[in-house]
Amino acid sequence: METEANGASENAGRVMDGPTNPMVTPLLTDLYQFTMAYAYWKAGKHNDRAVFDLYFRKNPFGGEFTVFAGLEECIKLIANFKLTEEEISFIRKSLPGSCEEGFFSYLREIDCSDVEVYAISEGTVVFPKVPLLRVEGPVAVVQLLETPVLNLVNFASLVATNAARHRLVAGNSKMLLEFGLRRAQGPDGAIGASKYCYMGGFDATSNVAAGRLFGIPLRGTHSHAFVSSFMSPDEILDRSLCSSDGSSTCEDFVSLVQSWLSKIQWSKPLSGIFGETNQSELAAFMSYALAFPNNFLALVDTYDVMRSGVPNFCAVALALRDLGYKAVGIRLDSGDLAYLSSEARKIFHTIEKEFGVPGFGKMSITASNDLNEETLDALNKQGHEVDCFGIGTYLVTCYAQAALGCVFKLVEINNQPRIKLSEDVSKVSIPCKKRCYRLYGKEGYSLVDIMTGENEPCPKVGERILCRHPFNESKRAYVVPQRVEMLLKCYWHGKSDKVREELPALKDIRDHCIKQLEQMRPDHIRRLNPTPYKVSVSAKLYDFIHFLWLNEAPVGELQ
Amino acid sequence: METEANGASENAGRVMDGPTNPMVTPLLTDLYQFTMAYAYWKAGKHNDRAVFDLYFRKNPFGGEFTVFAGLEECIKLIANFKLTEEEISFIRKSLPGSCEEGFFSYLREIDCSDVEVYAISEGTVVFPKVPLLRVEGPVAVVQLLETPVLNLVNFASLVATNAARHRLVAGNSKMLLEFGLRRAQGPDGAIGASKYCYMGGFDATSNVAAGRLFGIPLRGTHSHAFVSSFMSPDEILDRSLCSSDGSSTCEDFVSLVQSWLSKIQWSKPLSGIFGETNQSELAAFMSYALAFPNNFLALVDTYDVMRSGVPNFCAVALALRDLGYKAVGIRLDSGDLAYLSSEARKIFHTIEKEFGVPGFGKMSITASNDLNEETLDALNKQGHEVDCFGIGTYLVTCYAQAALGCVFKLVEINNQPRIKLSEDVSKVSIPCKKRCYRLYGKEGYSLVDIMTGENEPCPKVGERILCRHPFNESKRAYVVPQRVEMLLKCYWHGKSDKVREELPALKDIRDHCIKQLEQMRPDHIRRLNPTPYKVSVSAKLYDFIHFLWLNEAPVGELQ
Repeated sequence: METEANGASENAGRVMDGPTNPMVTPLLTDLYQFTMAYAYWKAGKHNDRAVFDLYFRKNPFGGEFTVFAGLEECIKLIANFKLTEEEISFIRKSLPGSCEEGFFSYLREIDCSDVEVYAISEGTVVFPKVPLLRVEGPVAVVQLLETPVLNLVNFASLVATNAARHRLVAGNSKMLLEFGLRRAQGPDGAIGASKYCYMGGFDATSNVAAGRLFGIPLRGTHSHAFVSSFMSPDEILDRSLCSSDGSSTCEDFVSLVQSWLSKIQWSKPLSGIFGETNQSELAAFMSYALAFPNNFLALVDTYDVMRSGVPNFCAVALALRDLGYKAVGIRLDSGDLAYLSSEARKIFHTIEKEFGVPGFGKMSITASNDLNEETLDALNKQGHEVDCFGIGTYLVTCYAQAALGCVFKLVEINNQPRIKLSEDVSKVSIPCKKRCYRLYGKEGYSLVDIMTGENEPCPKVGERILCRHPFNESKRAYVVPQRVEMLLKCYWHGKSDKVREELPALKDIRDHCIKQLEQMRPDHIRRLNPTPYKVSVSAKLYDFIHFLWLNEAPVGELQ
Repeated sequence: METEANGASENAGRVMDGPTNPMVTPLLTDLYQFTMAYAYWKAGKHNDRAVFDLYFRKNPFGGEFTVFAGLEECIKLIANFKLTEEEISFIRKSLPGSCEEGFFSYLREIDCSDVEVYAISEGTVVFPKVPLLRVEGPVAVVQLLETPVLNLVNFASLVATNAARHRLVAGNSKMLLEFGLRRAQGPDGAIGASKYCYMGGFDATSNVAAGRLFGIPLRGTHSHAFVSSFMSPDEILDRSLCSSDGSSTCEDFVSLVQSWLSKIQWSKPLSGIFGETNQSELAAFMSYALAFPNNFLALVDTYDVMRSGVPNFCAVALALRDLGYKAVGIRLDSGDLAYLSSEARKIFHTIEKEFGVPGFGKMSITASNDLNEETLDALNKQGHEVDCFGIGTYLVTCYAQAALGCVFKLVEINNQPRIKLSEDVSKVSIPCKKRCYRLYGKEGYSLVDIMTGENEPCPKVGERILCRHPFNESKRAYVVPQRVEMLLKCYWHGKSDKVREELPALKDIRDHCIKQLEQMRPDHIRRLNPTPYKVSVSAKLYDFIHFLWLNEAPVGELQ
């Protein structure tokens, strides 16, 4: 997706596309970022060098892992961060009239040429407290970035995680389609969901705009309205269909279907199962097959799945087969999906046997009615014959937990470490500009993430290192890593000459995410009672955190 | 917001802005709308005249009302609905290669000049089953509109309803601020939330982009990071502050604040309450006050609300007062908001009395930590001193219910009424192109909504009319309306000469919404066990629904 023309070595004149949504501008921020920028400027502090960490405190959906997403959009925002004159006028109107004109001249100058962003690569499995992004730069500029960057990471990571969870419960053999556009939280709630569900392991989307923007495979056939828009087969005027190999033409496809329908209805093993089918539905199926003879997939629950939808589908599929076409399958959008998919599968097998149609039993069955992790899990337990799931509302709105709580905390200013205290220990921030590593054990699984101060030596393979819980003094363990992965890499370096990471294509991020999940120890990612993954700090950082904490906290007085 | 230059009578050359988000294009739809369009076109049915109703089946959040929102964006989409060549090329690539070229020529021609939209006015309180929009036009075109229109209405109505519910529990005297940008579902999940929360009764937003796009009042001061970015008052170099009336200049504002701080600390009624305050916080407050002497509002919970934040705030506020400025107040972002707001209020009153500072007790208190309907309700029950609530995550992501289930159902084609059946009665659609009325009783409250066939006479004031539940034959009631309101009005009429409704300004929609809620019978909108509002059909429509139902449903066979 990255259309940047220049390599990492060409820093001057770097060109990068802006964020996908043109509404993502420097004004997509909280007003207080501008009031603070003014106060920093007024105090002469606006260029103080600040380091902020972006991290979350708790994994979503009751799980013990999160998929990090949204980085590409953040970097595109940062690369193009520049206020227009019109935006500056609006800010002037929005701030008190007493603000000095010099501030607006300053706003006119700012960009991210003095900002550095280190980040974990997009699509990586991540855990609480570890910085996903570390943003360093002039305090006023980095503050302006806080809100849009949080916005771009929070939902992206939430919905990518949701998709990954759906994939884990559905299994790798099933096709997963994202159908959420109509119920998503606004237009790019939908477009973002399509992008990040694909990243998290979905196979395709129904959302045409997302298909175009991101190259995601598209899927879709027809709706109930299509079925009920037909009254009867008499409406079908052009009834001819050329055979698949072009060798002959069936002049009356309608009659061919109708003769198959009566053969099915009166065949011994099926007699009594099918009554009279709905003629409006039959007409719709025939019309759809005439339009897409190679892609016939029918929604079979408009009237009655077993009495009407399935026999109508089979009649059309058998007629298509006479002409050399292979029907795709059916979609179920209501009712007991475990039962209906199994019953439909039985009919397909019966037809394969009764009419000698090899492969008919393997007809694809898609299910799509308000599915979520729980219903997928329940279907697995009941047994079903669904090959493909279309998932919408619960997936794209993250219905089970509609927000991820990423925060953006100041950890250092002018080389002075800063801490944010709270009566709730889980809300105390981890100070200092840090390095973050993932340590792997003998079996190839990752064992623990560790944060160290910037100047501490890198953990070494084969050397014992003490990993401490940042806030619980009794929780600590020695680890001898078999592999050490540096988590934070440079994705933006302003004007400097450092080499920075390229932004990978969406498909590559998706592959990385799928591989990451495969490499996780299964108990960390299971649905029920997952084991928390360990996140630690070095002994040196531990001591420093607690020194700073005592230093900043007021001493109480009992009265 | 409507920038249309022409009046309702000038139909030719009508100009209307497109949707707020430029990503809302005709491609923001499900692929199946295009596959169906092709199948309709191939069957020669694409210009069949279809009527679709957009409605929902259940009110959100366990309530018994919904605020309808999103209409303006729908009309802007429809008014500008036209596929570009690039979009058509993408559709060609996305459909099977067998699709005939004539279809793409057809796509090139389509727009909404033959589409009519009747809708309930935006901001109206609405109920299940009643169409919010009725879209009529060529079936293939109206199908293409289905997905984007659902997307634009679903979240808009959900979040406007959520905002209205927060307003109802907070009461009219409190200031409500929307602070959700960082946690919203993507960039325009946030911008949409800001727009529709304002519509639903919020007073302002923190989202600068939404302020610019929609003219919503903006609010914001500073964050914890601002507080911890300061080390000590020594950092403050320019310490002078001109008095409010310009008559004098205080050369050392820092010393003035520090002298007030020790006065507070050693004053009799306060001694022992305050210990030594945090100097980094004090420096931040002084800097903010120097930047915004007329708008001093301090976040007081970075270190310790009562031991540090409140006394530091009071010292700065009293120093500002010496120079003729009036501080605004404090913000609490953690802890027990009921307790802390009450304790802070006591301190403000004590200072008013002790130092003879009239009005100091009325200092504004804002609260903003993960608030939602439940926590607002709990605060009300506990008693609190908060004047203003900043609400984010739970409001904008509609955490309590992240999606509204609006559907778009075919109710008539070529003047033939259509019904969608389901084993779940609540999912059966109400057929026919309908008219919808709201009937009001003697006390001014609305009694019932009624749907009739298009050609039935309008209910008349003072005349008895039978209102029937659409699916439960025993539920029916006679009503003698004192006022009859026609709910569906024409908002788009393609090329015809009919007068259409203007799209009102956002502020006017907000006023309409607030008025609507005031006019509801209180038991329909209360939080606990609200009474369902009655939605009915005329006797004639009732009979027709059930005739059609029997006609379409297959007869089962018990075996």
